[in-house]
Amino acid sequence: MLSIEKYQQEFTVYLEAYNTLKEPKNLYEPVEYILSLGGKRLRPVLTLMATDIFKGNYRDAMNAALSIEVFHNFSLVHDDIMDDAPLRRGQQTVHEKWDVNTGILSGDAMLIMAYQLFENYEPETFRALAKLFSKTALEVCEGQQYDVDFETRNDVTIPEYLKMIEYKTAVLVGAAMKMGAIVAGASKDDQHNIYEFGKNLGIAFQLQDDYLDAFGDPKTFGKQVGGDIIENKKTYLYLKALEFSSNETAAQLLELFSSTPEDATVKVQDAKTLFLDSGAAEATKKAIEGYTNKAFTVLQYLDISEDKKAVLKAFGTNLMNRTV
Amino acid sequence: MLSIEKYQQEFTVYLEAYNTLKEPKNLYEPVEYILSLGGKRLRPVLTLMATDIFKGNYRDAMNAALSIEVFHNFSLVHDDIMDDAPLRRGQQTVHEKWDVNTGILSGDAMLIMAYQLFENYEPETFRALAKLFSKTALEVCEGQQYDVDFETRNDVTIPEYLKMIEYKTAVLVGAAMKMGAIVAGASKDDQHNIYEFGKNLGIAFQLQDDYLDAFGDPKTFGKQVGGDIIENKKTYLYLKALEFSSNETAAQLLELFSSTPEDATVKVQDAKTLFLDSGAAEATKKAIEGYTNKAFTVLQYLDISEDKKAVLKAFGTNLMNRTV
Repeated sequence: MLSIEKYQQEFTVYLEAYNTLKEPKNLYEPVEYILSLGGKRLRPVLTLMATDIFKGNYRDAMNAALSIEVFHNFSLVHDDIMDDAPLRRGQQTVHEKWDVNTGILSGDAMLIMAYQLFENYEPETFRALAKLFSKTALEVCEGQQYDVDFETRNDVTIPEYLKMIEYKTAVLVGAAMKMGAIVAGASKDDQHNIYEFGKNLGIAFQLQDDYLDAFGDPKTFGKQVGGDIIENKKTYLYLKALEFSSNETAAQLLELFSSTPEDATVKVQDAKTLFLDSGAAEATKKAIEGYTNKAFTVLQYLDISEDKKAVLKAFGTNLMNRTV
Repeated sequence: MLSIEKYQQEFTVYLEAYNTLKEPKNLYEPVEYILSLGGKRLRPVLTLMATDIFKGNYRDAMNAALSIEVFHNFSLVHDDIMDDAPLRRGQQTVHEKWDVNTGILSGDAMLIMAYQLFENYEPETFRALAKLFSKTALEVCEGQQYDVDFETRNDVTIPEYLKMIEYKTAVLVGAAMKMGAIVAGASKDDQHNIYEFGKNLGIAFQLQDDYLDAFGDPKTFGKQVGGDIIENKKTYLYLKALEFSSNETAAQLLELFSSTPEDATVKVQDAKTLFLDSGAAEATKKAIEGYTNKAFTVLQYLDISEDKKAVLKAFGTNLMNRTV
């Protein structure tokens, strides 16, 4: 097996050789642009790793891995339009650099291109990959819609929130790994279990994102600490704090999360205090641990050697100890 | 073989039974809405007809036909956003009735749902259908991009224009018929030829749209006669008129097509006179005839009985004699 870095390197080479510069230029240049902005390439790496773990040739999984990455970037392009986001990975978003129409159409093209990347697989594998892809892609759309819906709702429950992040983020991580298993010809059980491993790790990852946004170290955390609080985002921390609070404190929290002060320093500090005092911070840490352990529990059912299980566990542990 | 009306009826029943009303409602209600707005359902009817013609059971082609219709409606939803169109089939467009974000996301979901409709076919058929679908869908995006690009260009050539309408409109007609042939298990040659038949008919159809927009009978033509002229659209009529005109008349035409008078009656009349006098109107009629005949020529190579060829020819003739 290769190291994460080796998968990353080989995938980057493959991605760079992927020729997206076709005519008409105004359709394909934005595709080239967004794919070249970088990122950790976490999802495609997981696909290659899964193929390797199930005794396949990870190079056979390159197109499936690329499909996942192209889809992920498609969703970023369309989400950035919906969120009216000016920046992505520190660079202009597609709809900012070009315009909204270009963002819509180039995104559409990317979604189709993602399907095309399965075409070199044998019919049975093609259908299995495309079927999983469609199911997952539709769930990602549903997750995005729930996220949009939640913005204007004040009665979002914890189970609803968990379903939203599962669909919006986690299922794609699960699918990335399951695709690797499919390419390797792993058993249905193994396919299912590696999907569950990835999905639970994905939920833990997203909950950790919520946590780090408030309690991350400003020195190492990439984004602005407190960003979610400033934007009044109803994260897991917020929902748990509401759940644990007395009516009085809940009212305080609601008021805080409908304010938009010019200088947010005090607001962020107040929110963090409420998160800590209510026990929401601790509960979030527990939930992250819970989903990580759920992922690790699945490992015992996989039909792979112990050292490979150790690799997956190390990967998960590493991901959960991140400060970025 | 059934009549066009019977295919239409059966398809409509199938479409109505297609359950799109899932959660989250804000994602799927627009899907239900746009699919229920009606239309001639020309493309899916062609899929069913093609299956029938190649001795398949047209009912086996229902999902492929539905996929084509869902894709077509996806493209309408996203195109309407790009064109900022308020109305579609006399009703509010999705982004008007809801908002732009809803239009983007529901459209994305429809594109994925179109792929899912192939999932009940056997792996070989599934791959053949999905591959054709992806190629076609990407061409439709490219056609839309060319259309957008042409708006701000003054040097669009006739071959470029023909390529644009081929991609934006005609390939989907060809693909609809080829999918029917694939489901029926027709030979590669037959698949290719029915595609060419549909594609050429599609080009003729679009050129006729250009022609009728200026010279259609206001009593029978569904849309506002002269709409393209009012919007300064560079249609086949316009490009041919430019090609055939002296420098002086060309200058007149250019000026006319950069004006936006409050009352467009005179402008429409002037443009029509230029189209007629330059010979562009006649040339457009000739081109429509040319592409229709090109479609009919392909019929001789099809491995089907003469009476079925007659059905296809009647369908084409009928389409080309339309006034709507």
